Amino acid sequence: MIVDTSARVFARRGYHATGIMELCAANQLGKGALYHYIGSKEELLAAIHDRVMDEVMLGADRVAEAGGSPSEQLAMLGDELLDVIHRYPDHVWVFLHEFPALTGERAQQFRTRRRKYEHRVEAVLQAGVETGEFRALEPKLTAMAWLGMHNYTYLWLKKGGRLSARDVAKPFAEIFMRGITDPSRVMPASTRRRR
Amino acid sequence: MIVDTSARVFARRGYHATGIMELCAANQLGKGALYHYIGSKEELLAAIHDRVMDEVMLGADRVAEAGGSPSEQLAMLGDELLDVIHRYPDHVWVFLHEFPALTGERAQQFRTRRRKYEHRVEAVLQAGVETGEFRALEPKLTAMAWLGMHNYTYLWLKKGGRLSARDVAKPFAEIFMRGITDPSRVMPASTRRRR
Repeated sequence: MIVDTSARVFARRGYHATGIMELCAANQLGKGALYHYIGSKEELLAAIHDRVMDEVMLGADRVAEAGGSPSEQLAMLGDELLDVIHRYPDHVWVFLHEFPALTGERAQQFRTRRRKYEHRVEAVLQAGVETGEFRALEPKLTAMAWLGMHNYTYLWLKKGGRLSARDVAKPFAEIFMRGITDPSRVMPASTRRRR
Repeated sequence: MIVDTSARVFARRGYHATGIMELCAANQLGKGALYHYIGSKEELLAAIHDRVMDEVMLGADRVAEAGGSPSEQLAMLGDELLDVIHRYPDHVWVFLHEFPALTGERAQQFRTRRRKYEHRVEAVLQAGVETGEFRALEPKLTAMAWLGMHNYTYLWLKKGGRLSARDVAKPFAEIFMRGITDPSRVMPASTRRRR
């Protein structure tokens, strides 16, 4: 698959430094055929970003459909996010490093999709504050803390590595949930189960 | 300063895609003069990494000298780390994105220095577990959670932005400290003071 093969090349070499001939060689396609499929190098970059966002949003949709308390929702969002990072290391590397290379409408579309996901996380945090499950917190800043903690695993959470996505998601959820739970409330079920 | 100017160029354009002529133009130096000062493009990259690590380790040393409880130490480490990220956005961008371009001894030296800092964070966590201030936790994985939460701010914590490094460090410390504090213990002083 051209998107996946090219993600690997961009991840190793960098988007700007990768020439169209390298992409041809990696995909075993001539220049004409490659352009026929991808349109342009930037469209290919956008497709890699879309692959990541598609997977992340599918996960977020599954979480929303599953329902549950805000802390359960947040734990599930963490499971899903780490699963994407674990399954798509090259795509995520490119996603996190090369997004400034997207221009015009593609840059705009990427920002909109990323914001949409961030809003999901913020909405879960806000819901938890409203039910009193979470302490008073600033949803936006707290979402950035949560995203950072999870996204940053792309540097060391590897397919075939010692730790699975779940091995990391569980202790991370435990730290974060304790960190934002109203201390006067009982420990949420999802966290209690894990101890 | 060549290191700082070049960090800006690498951050915008990517290390591999930046030619020596672009570095000459940015630094207003001829090719001979530039090579005289930097040795090689990779040495320049190593110098940018060193700038970040120097600042980060200086901060960690200040924290160690200041003393205090493990939770106070961890809060101070967060202050110091976010301060570096806030002051050196281009260097940190290059540091986090281009480290795989370092080769041989330079790569080894970079890994060693980064591990040394991670060990500082792990040691504070371990100390807190031993004093009973923190609950039983896996110091290495917990350090990665802490590092991710803080390092990832490089994407949005900007000089001249709405939020200062301290504005972010405080709520982050509050989340993290509650997240790892033994719930049977009183809230640590550093956290209590901030509420």
